[in-house]
Amino acid sequence: MYYLDHAATTPVLPEVREAMFAALEHDFGNPSSVHGFGRRARELVEDARDRVAAAVGASPAEIVFTGGGTEADNLALKGAASKLRGNGRHLAVSAIEHHAVLDTVEWLKRQGYETSIVEVTQDGFVTTEALVKAVRSDTTVVSVMAVNNEIGTIQEIGSLAGAVKETNGSTLFHTDAVQALGNIPVDVHAWGVDLAAFAAHKVGGPKGVGALFVRSGVPVEAVIHGGGQERGLRSGTLNVAGIVGFGIAAEIAAKEVYEKSERMEALRDRLLDGLRAIAPDVVVNGTLEMRATNNINVCIPGTEGETLLLLLDQAEIACSSGSACASGALDPSHVLLAIGVPKELAKGSLRFSFGRDSSEDDVEAALKVLPAVVERARKVA
Amino acid sequence: MYYLDHAATTPVLPEVREAMFAALEHDFGNPSSVHGFGRRARELVEDARDRVAAAVGASPAEIVFTGGGTEADNLALKGAASKLRGNGRHLAVSAIEHHAVLDTVEWLKRQGYETSIVEVTQDGFVTTEALVKAVRSDTTVVSVMAVNNEIGTIQEIGSLAGAVKETNGSTLFHTDAVQALGNIPVDVHAWGVDLAAFAAHKVGGPKGVGALFVRSGVPVEAVIHGGGQERGLRSGTLNVAGIVGFGIAAEIAAKEVYEKSERMEALRDRLLDGLRAIAPDVVVNGTLEMRATNNINVCIPGTEGETLLLLLDQAEIACSSGSACASGALDPSHVLLAIGVPKELAKGSLRFSFGRDSSEDDVEAALKVLPAVVERARKVA
Repeated sequence: MYYLDHAATTPVLPEVREAMFAALEHDFGNPSSVHGFGRRARELVEDARDRVAAAVGASPAEIVFTGGGTEADNLALKGAASKLRGNGRHLAVSAIEHHAVLDTVEWLKRQGYETSIVEVTQDGFVTTEALVKAVRSDTTVVSVMAVNNEIGTIQEIGSLAGAVKETNGSTLFHTDAVQALGNIPVDVHAWGVDLAAFAAHKVGGPKGVGALFVRSGVPVEAVIHGGGQERGLRSGTLNVAGIVGFGIAAEIAAKEVYEKSERMEALRDRLLDGLRAIAPDVVVNGTLEMRATNNINVCIPGTEGETLLLLLDQAEIACSSGSACASGALDPSHVLLAIGVPKELAKGSLRFSFGRDSSEDDVEAALKVLPAVVERARKVA
Repeated sequence: MYYLDHAATTPVLPEVREAMFAALEHDFGNPSSVHGFGRRARELVEDARDRVAAAVGASPAEIVFTGGGTEADNLALKGAASKLRGNGRHLAVSAIEHHAVLDTVEWLKRQGYETSIVEVTQDGFVTTEALVKAVRSDTTVVSVMAVNNEIGTIQEIGSLAGAVKETNGSTLFHTDAVQALGNIPVDVHAWGVDLAAFAAHKVGGPKGVGALFVRSGVPVEAVIHGGGQERGLRSGTLNVAGIVGFGIAAEIAAKEVYEKSERMEALRDRLLDGLRAIAPDVVVNGTLEMRATNNINVCIPGTEGETLLLLLDQAEIACSSGSACASGALDPSHVLLAIGVPKELAKGSLRFSFGRDSSEDDVEAALKVLPAVVERARKVA
């Protein structure tokens, strides 16, 4: 099987696996315990916190470990909106956010908050103008994802955060940076954001671990209550082995980002050239400029996305039609609709995404089977 | 080092570690993906769901995987209280609940809910009379933990749930069963509860994974929103390797519960006999009847708990003063205060808790150093 779906999840790096296995074997203590077993587990957690912080440009004290990227987005939006409800009850988020953001603001709406959805350009970008227009005097939180999970477009987070702060100095800026780590350089302080969400499993770490960057002094209320771990922001016994794995994965992701990005671009270009030769009418969703190089998202007119996926799977090529979370859903992607892809065409989308272990073999394998797959899919449709 | 703190967390079982390592190496797919990698991950998750369900007497469809026991308690209480707020806004919980329950109802109070705290007997039991008295026409959720994490007392969950249902047929009954699994037989349907929380790391599984039993038809609203995993009740990419580990650990815990319980009782009795010989004035907190056999919680008059812990740690004995989450906190345990232990005495509590790998060596090691430790602690105080 050839794996071209790294935006959904990534293979766990051997270094990560080994470190997790060692922690599971030798360092099982509860980091909240005061005895030696506990202190050793605490040391591992704090070492991982240092690594994750360094990978994203934060101080260790600004990193809150969570059960994943989705939980980090929930903590950012609910936690900040709730804490700042004295300032107002309005949030603004882009139209192409992940469901972890969109469904969270939907829930906040049911709790009496107001939400503005900021439209994006056909290329897939949030403009400063559109974002600033949505910021009101009672806007407490703005959320714009750094790299889109479906079409890979990279937002100008620094400019956007700056413009929001100029418009309303007390508005917090959150970015879902789950797809950014490892694909573009991440520096939360250079970006000037207040909150940023990360997930281990997108960068060769384990599933079930994430982190929220909370800039020093930024007020956030817990979503999960209990024993008071993570300075009261996320109760629950810490996932020591998972956190250890995240630390190593984040460090490697940050270290290799430039080299990997170049290598991914070559694979992406080769795949796209091949696709264009096979289906000259192929449509690329989103621009190729300012886009994570590991991502290509296309529509092939006259085909159904689900058919393509199934045929590719039978031919041992794993890719997706968009977000993994939405797999099996029959609705066209909200991201593709937001960038103006017609509904019928949007149903035929295919996302190929590369990762650290991707090679030309993966691309050639896909290109080898695609002519027959496309032909078959066109006949079925 | 000798580990006598299994109520805080347990060593990861070798079988669990191996299965997790295999999943991390070979089965990294996102269970939401439709391709072969995703389907294989999904199969592993569903196999683990079968095992966890069987271990607690539930149907697989009634198991929702979470990021831990604390999150499961949060989901039960917030999720049910929110969903049922049309029926009323009152909850009743016992005075000796874990902070995952107590702090969650504190948060609900700040959202406009009312809470009754049900007192317990000096032995450490919630009586039917006291519980029923707290149930009102607007009580939507009652929460009583199955086995107390500090003193090990086992509540009559079946009788309590039945009495609550007789008093108000629309009140939901939740039990924090985190310390029950592996220590007493667990059968959620025989108990007649609607909701029950479990954590993998208390039974030889990994940290960062838990489950909430949600009886078929019981209404619960999500706490974490996003991609809609776990039938919309807990969004976020599933922690495949952790869930695999939980499945194996839960199965072993249920299979060995009777044998383990007998073995723990012998260790507990030997430790207690030894303690009484060393400090004849030792006070056992909570009754020894109807108590998880792996737990002993004592106060040694004329000593400070923190001093005892530090001296024991120096002597290579790991135990705790109570809940791991509250370690380092200087307040006496709310559980000990609730069963009527005087404040000054409660500060000197020591909890020893045994697990699957505990042996007479652990007990003898503790008893060997305790005379000097107690003498020293008395001099310091």
